[in-house]
Amino acid sequence: MNAEPKKDEGRAEVWGDITPDAARRLVTAAVHAFAERGYHATTTRDIAGRAGMSPAALYIHYKTKEELLYQISKVGHQRALEIVEDARDSGGTPAERLSHAVRAFVRWHAEHHTTARVVQYELGALGEEHHAEVIAIRKATDGAVRAILEDGVRTGEFDVPDVRGATVAVLSLCIDVARWFNAQGRSTPDEVGELYAGLVLRMVGAQGR
Amino acid sequence: MNAEPKKDEGRAEVWGDITPDAARRLVTAAVHAFAERGYHATTTRDIAGRAGMSPAALYIHYKTKEELLYQISKVGHQRALEIVEDARDSGGTPAERLSHAVRAFVRWHAEHHTTARVVQYELGALGEEHHAEVIAIRKATDGAVRAILEDGVRTGEFDVPDVRGATVAVLSLCIDVARWFNAQGRSTPDEVGELYAGLVLRMVGAQGR
Repeated sequence: MNAEPKKDEGRAEVWGDITPDAARRLVTAAVHAFAERGYHATTTRDIAGRAGMSPAALYIHYKTKEELLYQISKVGHQRALEIVEDARDSGGTPAERLSHAVRAFVRWHAEHHTTARVVQYELGALGEEHHAEVIAIRKATDGAVRAILEDGVRTGEFDVPDVRGATVAVLSLCIDVARWFNAQGRSTPDEVGELYAGLVLRMVGAQGR
Repeated sequence: MNAEPKKDEGRAEVWGDITPDAARRLVTAAVHAFAERGYHATTTRDIAGRAGMSPAALYIHYKTKEELLYQISKVGHQRALEIVEDARDSGGTPAERLSHAVRAFVRWHAEHHTTARVVQYELGALGEEHHAEVIAIRKATDGAVRAILEDGVRTGEFDVPDVRGATVAVLSLCIDVARWFNAQGRSTPDEVGELYAGLVLRMVGAQGR
């Protein structure tokens, strides 16, 4: 157990849009508490303590533990969606856009693996409305990747017998990086992204691979 | 919440070797409790209650909650290892053996997704010795898949620039099925296995794919 947020997850780029500073500190503390002990084993008191605040101070920003999970899940899912939409709209051939999407999506899941695990594994703890909202973002992410695959099939650059199934596989491969990635391991996030972009281009039968 | 074990996870083939019957019931109850609430939020009293037993009766079979997790993790990991070792030793070309491994590994993770999630996501809660034992089984599983890839490269049937990286990717793709698979969804475990075997053969540059 470590009361200090890990460096890789404390980066401004993840939670930078959350203000004021106290709310941002609470979100960072919640990510680490949920990742270590699970959502259900974590109390708002634990989270406040990690953030160096009182439970009453937490309550000013978040009325419930579920609101904190929702905030984490929403920001994480929106960031994932932005990444694949950027790639979809980036110009270039379908192979270039797919490679771009995979490299960026893998890098995010490797660099922010603690956040990504909470986002992926605690979905079931969201309230009904929040869950529906997050599922809609996931569908849009799925749609953005599928659009790139469909473009490649249309131009004849890709050969994909089952576009829907291949889309699930591509996203799944990238998301699972959050489970196994180890910052002290042999590969950097960029190296995994590069390897995976190559593997995914082969999966979709990209010409010349 | 549902006190009854789900049908797909109660199958004799998963926990059939655990005797007596009371120990098997406790393991099944623990799998569902851990999957729903997480390891740290579950008490031995919860588990005993789900199994229709007293905490004292649980204690006869398992001294601690961690022993239950260890039992689940060990059986799950041993089963995964058997699956890939069977495929490695099954005869046939490397492509046939890899296809066999992926189909069987995916099927296991889809059919037993609740167990597989506990096995994969609660690794960090194992005690030090138990963790080391499970990591050794995981390394053997990785080694069995890698051996098939190396055979294919040796015979010229596969073209794999990074065998170690591709091995991680193949296992990761199959393991993540446990996260997203939905028994009420559009694909059966066998259909996902078939799709994934084709995608993996492309990933390793199998001839004629």
